[in-house]
Amino acid sequence: MTIGNGNLNPDRLFSSDPSTRKISREIYQTIENLPIISPHGHTDPLWFSNNKPFPNPTNLFLTPDHYFFRMLHSQGINLDDLNIPRLDNNNFLAEKSVWKKFMENYYIFFGTPSDIWFRHSLSAVFDINEEPNLGNADIIYDKIQTKLQNINFRPRALLDRFNVEVIATTEMALDDLVYHKKLKDEDMIGKIISTYRPDDVTDPDLSDFEKRLEEFGLITNENTFTWKGMVNAHRIRRKFFREYGATATDHGFSSFITEDLNENERQTLLDKALNNKLTKEESAIFKGQILMEMAGLSVEDGMVMQIHTGSYRNYDNQLMIERGPNMGCDIPICTEFTNNLNKLLNRYGHSRNLKIILFTLDETTYSRELAPLAGYWQCLRIGPPWWFYDSPNGIKRFLNQIVETAGFYNLSGFNDDTRAFLSIPSRHDVWRREVSNFLAQMVVEYRMNQNDANKVASDLSYGIAKKLYNLN
Amino acid sequence: MTIGNGNLNPDRLFSSDPSTRKISREIYQTIENLPIISPHGHTDPLWFSNNKPFPNPTNLFLTPDHYFFRMLHSQGINLDDLNIPRLDNNNFLAEKSVWKKFMENYYIFFGTPSDIWFRHSLSAVFDINEEPNLGNADIIYDKIQTKLQNINFRPRALLDRFNVEVIATTEMALDDLVYHKKLKDEDMIGKIISTYRPDDVTDPDLSDFEKRLEEFGLITNENTFTWKGMVNAHRIRRKFFREYGATATDHGFSSFITEDLNENERQTLLDKALNNKLTKEESAIFKGQILMEMAGLSVEDGMVMQIHTGSYRNYDNQLMIERGPNMGCDIPICTEFTNNLNKLLNRYGHSRNLKIILFTLDETTYSRELAPLAGYWQCLRIGPPWWFYDSPNGIKRFLNQIVETAGFYNLSGFNDDTRAFLSIPSRHDVWRREVSNFLAQMVVEYRMNQNDANKVASDLSYGIAKKLYNLN
Amino acid sequence: MTIGNGNLNPDRLFSSDPSTRKISREIYQTIENLPIISPHGHTDPLWFSNNKPFPNPTNLFLTPDHYFFRMLHSQGINLDDLNIPRLDNNNFLAEKSVWKKFMENYYIFFGTPSDIWFRHSLSAVFDINEEPNLGNADIIYDKIQTKLQNINFRPRALLDRFNVEVIATTEMALDDLVYHKKLKDEDMIGKIISTYRPDDVTDPDLSDFEKRLEEFGLITNENTFTWKGMVNAHRIRRKFFREYGATATDHGFSSFITEDLNENERQTLLDKALNNKLTKEESAIFKGQILMEMAGLSVEDGMVMQIHTGSYRNYDNQLMIERGPNMGCDIPICTEFTNNLNKLLNRYGHSRNLKIILFTLDETTYSRELAPLAGYWQCLRIGPPWWFYDSPNGIKRFLNQIVETAGFYNLSGFNDDTRAFLSIPSRHDVWRREVSNFLAQMVVEYRMNQNDANKVASDLSYGIAKKLYNLN
Repeated sequence: MTIGNGNLNPDRLFSSDPSTRKISREIYQTIENLPIISPHGHTDPLWFSNNKPFPNPTNLFLTPDHYFFRMLHSQGINLDDLNIPRLDNNNFLAEKSVWKKFMENYYIFFGTPSDIWFRHSLSAVFDINEEPNLGNADIIYDKIQTKLQNINFRPRALLDRFNVEVIATTEMALDDLVYHKKLKDEDMIGKIISTYRPDDVTDPDLSDFEKRLEEFGLITNENTFTWKGMVNAHRIRRKFFREYGATATDHGFSSFITEDLNENERQTLLDKALNNKLTKEESAIFKGQILMEMAGLSVEDGMVMQIHTGSYRNYDNQLMIERGPNMGCDIPICTEFTNNLNKLLNRYGHSRNLKIILFTLDETTYSRELAPLAGYWQCLRIGPPWWFYDSPNGIKRFLNQIVETAGFYNLSGFNDDTRAFLSIPSRHDVWRREVSNFLAQMVVEYRMNQNDANKVASDLSYGIAKKLYNLN
Repeated sequence: MTIGNGNLNPDRLFSSDPSTRKISREIYQTIENLPIISPHGHTDPLWFSNNKPFPNPTNLFLTPDHYFFRMLHSQGINLDDLNIPRLDNNNFLAEKSVWKKFMENYYIFFGTPSDIWFRHSLSAVFDINEEPNLGNADIIYDKIQTKLQNINFRPRALLDRFNVEVIATTEMALDDLVYHKKLKDEDMIGKIISTYRPDDVTDPDLSDFEKRLEEFGLITNENTFTWKGMVNAHRIRRKFFREYGATATDHGFSSFITEDLNENERQTLLDKALNNKLTKEESAIFKGQILMEMAGLSVEDGMVMQIHTGSYRNYDNQLMIERGPNMGCDIPICTEFTNNLNKLLNRYGHSRNLKIILFTLDETTYSRELAPLAGYWQCLRIGPPWWFYDSPNGIKRFLNQIVETAGFYNLSGFNDDTRAFLSIPSRHDVWRREVSNFLAQMVVEYRMNQNDANKVASDLSYGIAKKLYNLN
Repeated sequence: MTIGNGNLNPDRLFSSDPSTRKISREIYQTIENLPIISPHGHTDPLWFSNNKPFPNPTNLFLTPDHYFFRMLHSQGINLDDLNIPRLDNNNFLAEKSVWKKFMENYYIFFGTPSDIWFRHSLSAVFDINEEPNLGNADIIYDKIQTKLQNINFRPRALLDRFNVEVIATTEMALDDLVYHKKLKDEDMIGKIISTYRPDDVTDPDLSDFEKRLEEFGLITNENTFTWKGMVNAHRIRRKFFREYGATATDHGFSSFITEDLNENERQTLLDKALNNKLTKEESAIFKGQILMEMAGLSVEDGMVMQIHTGSYRNYDNQLMIERGPNMGCDIPICTEFTNNLNKLLNRYGHSRNLKIILFTLDETTYSRELAPLAGYWQCLRIGPPWWFYDSPNGIKRFLNQIVETAGFYNLSGFNDDTRAFLSIPSRHDVWRREVSNFLAQMVVEYRMNQNDANKVASDLSYGIAKKLYNLN
């Protein structure tokens, strides 16, 4: 990356064994400056569209990053004291006092990737090389605040500085893509693209499901109360999203099954869904059939299908009621792919046009299911370590458990999947360092030669993601 | 610890990489002499109350330690030949001949933590630095036997020598705490404390459940045949245990769910339980509601709630019939926390007065459930590696899979959870060495500075446990 | 092994830490030349019986090895282009052009054990020390092809060169063992032995189940339509297999339960099976009872019982229809041993004559179930890492998660379980190197002395398997 390194030790995260470290470093040097491909994430398109300064350090780092505030909450700090918004009335504290509360408790992040990302950002972006703590909280806050006013720290400038070649945001089916429209007018689509995530009109457990489908029908001019019309509405909407650069879809159900029902069964389910009469099991079947339809549409239009499954969303009822979703209390659950993917794979698995990327929060599926599945089916790829596992040890476990069965070329490269814009360079950097480590160990143990390792490192950092997501 | 080191290499268990080993050693040196906090375990209060000499080496090391005799059994050695008591008639062999059988087969413990603990005890406690085997079985036996007669090898002297600041035993609800009463008279409560483990009156699958509840009612003067009376009896009994130093409760059901039933449903379950009419499912629901009540009582009285779940107890019917429970054939099963804790967390999870420590025998829950849960809920802490995982590699896997998500401060420090008194210093020593290793690697890879690592090491070895269990 | 080493680095796979590597090497040197015991595998007895030259490199390496062609398939290469036989009409390509397709895509095997095995074979067997790729595909093909004509490269010569002391093939109950008969006539039974795998007559889900049982009755002269007659037929057939050296049985159901039904229940199940009327659940119960019967027969005749469970066989319907079973699309599923073995263990678990070796494709069972079970029950042993886990990292995870609980002596040593004849020396070599690594780390961390480590290494590489499988 073309960003400064501050006091970040150039050998950070590399193996402590000198011979391995040397090779890690050599491999890393061949890939560290590759552009960033960020084909899946949750940055806000408004940032790039408006390109206004970020308001202040607290708003930049703490309040959008549930990694931070969930951990502070776990140590007994009230979310109100961190300015985490309520759905009803808010009474925000002074941003600087919140920052000090954050810094006072910073030690609880020792050993976590949040600490790596944060210190990377401080140093590489803001040239702040002190250890963050209560003692220098004020100084650090002021330094950041000053820089944020500078034009070089606006969102688009940072994109360039981070050497981002392309970044995907994620929008719901009913989103009007207003910010992407502006980006298109400015000819920035291609660098900033959307992703089609239709969970807002495919999850019958959501409140107002009927209203959502109705709206979906209106914007696509389809009768979405019939199954066929609903599928056609997706067909139309996917096309609309592709106009704003989308090359992929994303699906984030908690439960995970795939179904292959006949037309009558499908319509019956939809009718029940519209009347709010699905049992819990039927709701799962509904979603299982939705995944089948989405795969079918991907076979048609070539959009890459991403499946993020296995998270018990909005686990804390009180939090959900007070502050809404995506507030740090989604908890992983056991996930099963072998049985649950069988129907989909037996229907569409041999299609040359289909690519499905599977993400998991259940690491037991790495060696047991994902690697053996991806090592056979040409339509399947394994997504990079997701969420809590996007970390040095998480990446080590991922590569250790997957590569021997699936090889390197059934992986998907890396994606950062983050709302925390400033963590993007660091997340990609951690991935590249751990890939270098893993390959260096292969070299030191005479399993690969270093030239091949360099090629694989480059492919895992850049080439595979670019090709897989059709970003050429 | 202030115990001798014999031929125990001072660098044992440290990483083989020289730079990491150096830092492991430096970190370890800052914590090795911290007092032992042992807030959960199964030593016999009679030892400390009576303070009589341990009878002989076989009785001291082999017969109370199912780690040893289960493994000997797995290699075809009959438990009768190891003097493992039968419930009916016993025909014990000479203790020394049993010891020789043990030593003859000692090689089967290579690679196990039992070997580490045993050799640590031989060297550090008895100054025996030979490798144990059949050839020196007699000599070792005699050396130990001689020392055991010495007043410095009595239980209380050993507690001091081990630098134990506080040790908790575990007693059932119906236990009269007679040994703790004597300890109280001698003003030793505070150093030796009880723990309230009410499984004897909360598990409807136990024989004589009705009789147990009746007795529970008698000693608390409550009508324990009503749900409300039963809960009140616990309230009273917990207070009684607190007079003997108890700051924590412990719950050890095989199955694990939590329930939130209404008053009628609870009473109906209790009525069925008293009439021995619970189905297997209803029995699980009963226990799930018990856990909810216990959490409610902890919110009231501040006792820390420990949950040890996921062991199929008394798996070998023949063993159970011949020799009773806790004889080495409890086998782990799959465990699920995310769904099963949801009801309890949604009822009491935001209470400032509640602390729940979760222990697991299913390591897949470390990264998938326990770390994400404890990284959000302030009432949850993750207990140290339990049972088979209280070992060097077990601790490595635990820290590797948990810390990046939960940090260090949602752990519980260490507890030894043992019946094998002499293994206590070694178990804490292994924990401290592995913590030092883990932190040293963080330092060597530039993830933490060494000062911070020292602080964390001390907190994990002493401070966190002391504070969490309210042992100040 | 007494085979040449070519350019295979003598330190390959050893730890990169110099002090550990030195000890790994020293331990390995004490075991590298031990004979190969291969007590479970799938080589073709025809090879050894006829002892004809292997036809060509493609036929030798690629087409029998689903590890290779499944991965090529995952990268979009059609199985027809790899000469993988169809059940109906085949239109085979020139073998050399297939070989070039293989070599062109060889890079996808980087990081996999297939790469290790293949390069080991090239170097050690054919003295080819180049990196395989498209550039030298022709040359390598021709070199191998030439050597295959040499008498020293015939199957029996290779067995000797690989230093194979004994190798077991696997035959179905209805197999007539015609190749083993010829081997017996030539007095080669003892070196090449059969294994009794009765899945062809014990799986009621197979087509023609009734016909199979009928044939089974004919060759044993039993009424196999009664449960008792069926069991007796197995008794007779096992004896027949033992005449051809078999010391073990093998059972490979996808599902895994054990049952203990009464006589009426068994016969009812069999009647339903013969009439094709078993539900899916009843079919699982049927197989669960079969396992119980097989354990009972092992108690009688002392044959070692191997259970390979947890693979969803023939997962891709199209593949199964076009090309039949064992074509690379069997996918692991979650497996449970604790509950599912309980009935069998409580019936036969204390029998001195019973040995059951458990294999798993669900690594979560290593520490949670297999190690605790094998560390208590004398009849249980844990099989080596199976299938996808027969790899350097797979072996590391296996030893890491099992040894501390089960010790070394509840393992089964190694078996290669392969159809790929030439991979056998390499697979055993990888095991021996990883065992040396694991023990070297124990030595370097002062957990074992090197003499003991040498003994354990030898036992894990040779002694335990020989004794456990009664191959003395």
